[in-house]
Amino acid sequence: LEKMKKNADLTWRSICRIGEEDPRRVLHSLKVGLSLTLVSLLSLLEPLFKGIGQNAIWAVMTVVLVLEFTAGATLRKGLNRVLGTLLAGALAFLIESIAQETGQVFRSIFIATTVFVIGAASTYMRYFPYIRKNYDYGVLIFLLTFNLITVSSYHVHNYVLKIACNRFYTIAIGCGICLLMSLLIFPNWSGQDLHNSTVSKLEGLATSIEACVNEYFSDEVVVHVAKGESLEDPIYKGYKSVLDSKSTDETLALHASWEPCHSKHCNRFPWQQYVKLGDVLRHFGYTVVALHGCLQTEIQTPRSVRALFRDPCIRVAGEVSKALTELASSIRKHQQCAPQILSDHLHKALQDLDTALKFQPRDLSGVSLSSVKTESTEWKLKRSSEQVKEAERKVLRPTLSKIAITSLEFSEALPFAAFASLLVEAVARLDLVIEEVEELGR
Amino acid sequence: LEKMKKNADLTWRSICRIGEEDPRRVLHSLKVGLSLTLVSLLSLLEPLFKGIGQNAIWAVMTVVLVLEFTAGATLRKGLNRVLGTLLAGALAFLIESIAQETGQVFRSIFIATTVFVIGAASTYMRYFPYIRKNYDYGVLIFLLTFNLITVSSYHVHNYVLKIACNRFYTIAIGCGICLLMSLLIFPNWSGQDLHNSTVSKLEGLATSIEACVNEYFSDEVVVHVAKGESLEDPIYKGYKSVLDSKSTDETLALHASWEPCHSKHCNRFPWQQYVKLGDVLRHFGYTVVALHGCLQTEIQTPRSVRALFRDPCIRVAGEVSKALTELASSIRKHQQCAPQILSDHLHKALQDLDTALKFQPRDLSGVSLSSVKTESTEWKLKRSSEQVKEAERKVLRPTLSKIAITSLEFSEALPFAAFASLLVEAVARLDLVIEEVEELGR
Repeated sequence: LEKMKKNADLTWRSICRIGEEDPRRVLHSLKVGLSLTLVSLLSLLEPLFKGIGQNAIWAVMTVVLVLEFTAGATLRKGLNRVLGTLLAGALAFLIESIAQETGQVFRSIFIATTVFVIGAASTYMRYFPYIRKNYDYGVLIFLLTFNLITVSSYHVHNYVLKIACNRFYTIAIGCGICLLMSLLIFPNWSGQDLHNSTVSKLEGLATSIEACVNEYFSDEVVVHVAKGESLEDPIYKGYKSVLDSKSTDETLALHASWEPCHSKHCNRFPWQQYVKLGDVLRHFGYTVVALHGCLQTEIQTPRSVRALFRDPCIRVAGEVSKALTELASSIRKHQQCAPQILSDHLHKALQDLDTALKFQPRDLSGVSLSSVKTESTEWKLKRSSEQVKEAERKVLRPTLSKIAITSLEFSEALPFAAFASLLVEAVARLDLVIEEVEELGR
Repeated sequence: LEKMKKNADLTWRSICRIGEEDPRRVLHSLKVGLSLTLVSLLSLLEPLFKGIGQNAIWAVMTVVLVLEFTAGATLRKGLNRVLGTLLAGALAFLIESIAQETGQVFRSIFIATTVFVIGAASTYMRYFPYIRKNYDYGVLIFLLTFNLITVSSYHVHNYVLKIACNRFYTIAIGCGICLLMSLLIFPNWSGQDLHNSTVSKLEGLATSIEACVNEYFSDEVVVHVAKGESLEDPIYKGYKSVLDSKSTDETLALHASWEPCHSKHCNRFPWQQYVKLGDVLRHFGYTVVALHGCLQTEIQTPRSVRALFRDPCIRVAGEVSKALTELASSIRKHQQCAPQILSDHLHKALQDLDTALKFQPRDLSGVSLSSVKTESTEWKLKRSSEQVKEAERKVLRPTLSKIAITSLEFSEALPFAAFASLLVEAVARLDLVIEEVEELGR
């Protein structure tokens, strides 16, 4: 009993968490329940049933299959459904009127052949990228409706048109309820989702790049390999959502393009531009991943050498992060961004990094590294003891990486050069991001 | 007429191209056509119709909605459909038998309330990650069937069980045809697709990294920015499919896990391991993206300096590429890979790179760069003339990158250090790849 109570408690908590993550989910569930109740009234209320009869099931089916989370997705599915049904009804009527002229046996063969051809052709059509993107559901519904009408009307002569009409009316009622629910009652807009996710991606990257550089120059030795890619790592958390956002972005943009104008900003924001910005952000993200990789490599520049460049690097990262945050807030407020202010500070920070690199060239060449050797070796010992622990946890650490470690004593300055270079690369990428955000603001 | 002929020709060519890209598409279309014809025989053949009647439409519906491209997807949808239908039928029967005990008005209210509660609850359930991943379609079908039975049985007293049974029989027939078509007649396996895509991803990365390093040290100045991310760029083409493979991989692995054992290798290959390998490959891909970024940055190390490290770098890249190709072929042949052979050559190449870096440290520090200044400036002029051309094509090149170019004359050695460091990073990542492939081979 104790265990059951505990289980029920756990279940209840996970139910609550789903709702807390996004309260619109609760609202959407209630909306679906309400729509289904409304549509089942078609059958439950005696006067309505007299008019519609068993065709009410088509309205039910429409509501279950068409009502989606966002308005754009619902509109897209609804229009696809109506178009598919209309075309299928028309084609079925045509086929039936041709078949009616002939004898019983020929009629069966003719219908079977048509079913085969239409089935194969429309399945093949779904592989066209354009149709797949926009009308996949419509083609499916076309195929479904065509077959249902053909099969169910075979034994009901001279009746096809009436079946098609009745079904169409009830489907239209179902679509009407779906549109009402998704467009008028607490609507969720795909466009809004896309907008918000773009803003949060920019902010995530800003956090990520700043945390990354801070960690690189921090004095505590953090066991990076152990943390790996856990969600607690703020750096990973920041860029994670950016990396795999391609398909989500594209779906949201597709749905958003079906949505009517619902706020004063909608005309000014072409959704395809958000997808483009997403592409550029993803590439910015790859640079951040590479920067993050610098924290995790086997060979590391000694901390004393790094400390020489600490100040300018942190400032560059801070400026990049600030720029990203400002871009995010300008998108959030639907304002034109003003990147000119940023470039001055960024330029100054870059120049300082430049100066720092210029005046410490000896430390960056392998020859003069001997002075910091002791510190480096000591640090390496620390590191290797960590690695033993790490090896105990992991089953088998391959031999290759050990070779890499031992053979690369010379190039301890190399990783820092890579780090600095990637930071400059990030600035160059920031450029492209600003360009796309400006395009978006136009 | 001429124009129409041209259009028809174009359409025909694009129809052929879709089929040529993957001939299984044609086969699948024919299979769908055949299944639909078979299922419509239930209605077209008089003796069969006598037994089944109008319930044949449920078999048609099942075939249209369940038959998918791969066996795993079909099995998953079919089982979901059967489970959903069974549960919905049972629940509808229970509700109906409770409602039957009461008066007419109370019965309507009771049913409407149930429809609301079940609708809201099952929509909410679809947000649970576990259910969303495995049983999303099943919940949808449950909701659909429950509502259809409830609505259509309201006016048909004492009849629910019969409706549910008949419907279940025909759905079972539909599922049977789907299973026959997808498992026995030219089956497409998701597992096979996943296997092949993993192999081609490994090969793509191998091509990519080799092409990248070769291009870095090649003497021709290629206009990289102009090529950008076009598909003709062999480097981009190689890693492109890796980067956004997460969702495809996961779907394929999910479907593959539903597939029965169909070859002698299937038990030895847990599909989740392919997903893990995909993760590691994606991270390897990010390093390749960063390497590719080195070819495209604004600041470049002079070619004369690069040439000093040409040989070891190209050898390291060649070894990495060779290792990836061998891993790909060992996966393709379902063999245990033998990475020990590789590490020797790779180690030698790494050591040579090491030596090269050790004996040319002056060229890598900013101080001694004056000797190569002339060459560098000349090359820069070349580059800036390209950039003018580039600027003419693009509408507006932002100001920031120009600042970056002018201010970063000092650090021309930096990009090469980044390049070398990323190459070493790639070797370290290769390590993880080998580890996962070994795990897969076990």
